[in-house]
Amino acid sequence: MILEAAAGVFAESGYDGASTTAILARTGLTRGALYHHFPSKEDIAAALVDVQSEALVAPERPIRLQAAIDLTLSFARKLQRDPVLQAGVRLTVEQTSFSEGKVVAYQRSAEVVLALLAEAAERGELRPDADVGDVADLVVGAFTGVQLMSQIYTERRDLLHRTSVLWRCLLPGIAAPELLPHLRTAPEPVDGTAK
Amino acid sequence: MILEAAAGVFAESGYDGASTTAILARTGLTRGALYHHFPSKEDIAAALVDVQSEALVAPERPIRLQAAIDLTLSFARKLQRDPVLQAGVRLTVEQTSFSEGKVVAYQRSAEVVLALLAEAAERGELRPDADVGDVADLVVGAFTGVQLMSQIYTERRDLLHRTSVLWRCLLPGIAAPELLPHLRTAPEPVDGTAK
Repeated sequence: MILEAAAGVFAESGYDGASTTAILARTGLTRGALYHHFPSKEDIAAALVDVQSEALVAPERPIRLQAAIDLTLSFARKLQRDPVLQAGVRLTVEQTSFSEGKVVAYQRSAEVVLALLAEAAERGELRPDADVGDVADLVVGAFTGVQLMSQIYTERRDLLHRTSVLWRCLLPGIAAPELLPHLRTAPEPVDGTAK
Repeated sequence: MILEAAAGVFAESGYDGASTTAILARTGLTRGALYHHFPSKEDIAAALVDVQSEALVAPERPIRLQAAIDLTLSFARKLQRDPVLQAGVRLTVEQTSFSEGKVVAYQRSAEVVLALLAEAAERGELRPDADVGDVADLVVGAFTGVQLMSQIYTERRDLLHRTSVLWRCLLPGIAAPELLPHLRTAPEPVDGTAK
């Protein structure tokens, strides 16, 4: 509730232009109640940024590289419609006086991808020349830019297509050749289990 | 001169926080002289964004795909040290009241890459299944995110390495297999001809 209100205020005014007074007005909380949860505006921003790691849950897949692909597709789908997640992403992309938490946000995302890629490498799913650290950073960096472009072009409506293209072009450079025919880069149809 | 002053003011205050008064103070121009060149703050921002297209000059290379690689490496090198270019990139990445020119900035960059990839496709340098439009957009989007991550991690000191990794991972998915051994993804050593 507080994070939704803060996301709305940051969306309208940017981080530096947003005031806790405006956030308070939207939540209906007293200043004391807000400060009990978040002692400063920076703490609110840090909590918004943390929402990204919470949205990065690796799905169970027999092929770990498929789990990495589906992780980004599922994140993309959430990002299309969740204003709190959108605010968190924006805070990690823009240069504002909120800067401390940004490196951590990228590192956490890269760690989730790295863990999947390390398992994939152990199972022989990757090309032997793939550097898992470099590839994990590349996936996070490239996805960050692809979602920015999608946001600017279509307000993220084409984000699933662009995420699929990213993987389709990347996989031959990182996956073991014999695995390629078994990997799916298109999003799964939304069903009861998809969040 | 005006653009350098504006880049400095935008860097300190962001687009929405920057005032033409602050830009004037830094240039030493009169308001009339500034308005003669740029009738509004938006016009200054548009000119800063245009600097990106000017920095995207395709180098002459026998292999057109190599020209595309070297284009991004040379752009990366300029971006490491040119505050005017840095301001232009920032304006295309952040959500501010300057929004009109952003789509155009991405489109122009994608067009330069697309022209090289279309020539590469004609010459048989690409995999037959590579969609040049999708790949051009991916290169621009992925580079945008990779440079953002490099900026946040190392103030862009590792940008050339990250750009090389991007191409090393992408090329097997887009280049004709027989061309792969002939493509260089590492930056050329800086010599007299490099800008």
